Amino acid sequence: MENIFTDEYFMKKAMQEAEVAFEQGEIPVGAVIVVNNTVIARSHNLTEMLNDVTAHAEMQSITAAANYLGGKYLKDCTLYVTLEPCQMCAGALYWSQITKIVFGARDEQRGFMTLGTKLHPKTTVVSGIMADEAANLMKRFFASKRK
Amino acid sequence: MENIFTDEYFMKKAMQEAEVAFEQGEIPVGAVIVVNNTVIARSHNLTEMLNDVTAHAEMQSITAAANYLGGKYLKDCTLYVTLEPCQMCAGALYWSQITKIVFGARDEQRGFMTLGTKLHPKTTVVSGIMADEAANLMKRFFASKRK
Repeated sequence: MENIFTDEYFMKKAMQEAEVAFEQGEIPVGAVIVVNNTVIARSHNLTEMLNDVTAHAEMQSITAAANYLGGKYLKDCTLYVTLEPCQMCAGALYWSQITKIVFGARDEQRGFMTLGTKLHPKTTVVSGIMADEAANLMKRFFASKRK
Repeated sequence: MENIFTDEYFMKKAMQEAEVAFEQGEIPVGAVIVVNNTVIARSHNLTEMLNDVTAHAEMQSITAAANYLGGKYLKDCTLYVTLEPCQMCAGALYWSQITKIVFGARDEQRGFMTLGTKLHPKTTVVSGIMADEAANLMKRFFASKRK
């Protein structure tokens, strides 16, 4: 039997969150956290609505997942996020000791890979899943803001 | 007339927050954010109580100060924090465009200076204010945990 729970399967759910952000006038980034093929947190960027630079999708999902699990370490969890995490989010992921990070599009300017933010040694990273879709949504967003 | 509003003056308030954290069994880090010599946010580490790795003193103060100011950018604000911020907090401070960061003790292992986290070009940094007091409180905390 084919395994439907691929990285693409869960990244689609993160993309749905990013689309909600887009509709709300937020920079369109979405995230979900998954454990045992179950989504335990889903969120999208809310920095504009909350007037809060810390309200990135990843930060909210980290807090929500820890709340769901009843512990602050995200053991056996995978974060799916449409855009490469920034220094802040990668720094939070470091503390969470999350098992796996899957992201879509690169953020060449402000992404943690460019800026060299340190992750926990237990954490593995997969990139490029639905990267074109995520990048296109970002482009559409910034094009609409320039109008 | 002597200016009472020195960096030491406000760092003492951050130290008071760190002492509250100590009493609550949290890693003893405290922070305040000041604008025009007025404290607009105060907080201490709550990672244990909230089971949330993102609940560092700085993160809470950034959110509270933005809420007070009604805007997400911490223009003309100074953060006083007893310990060198980590990657996550420095990453959040980057987004906030905060004017000044004053910290006490160095965190040689996990501090943003060691790990090279990028701050906003508008941000200036002062270190070493009440560093011994902050470091001693940390030492007392970890000694008490080893018992």
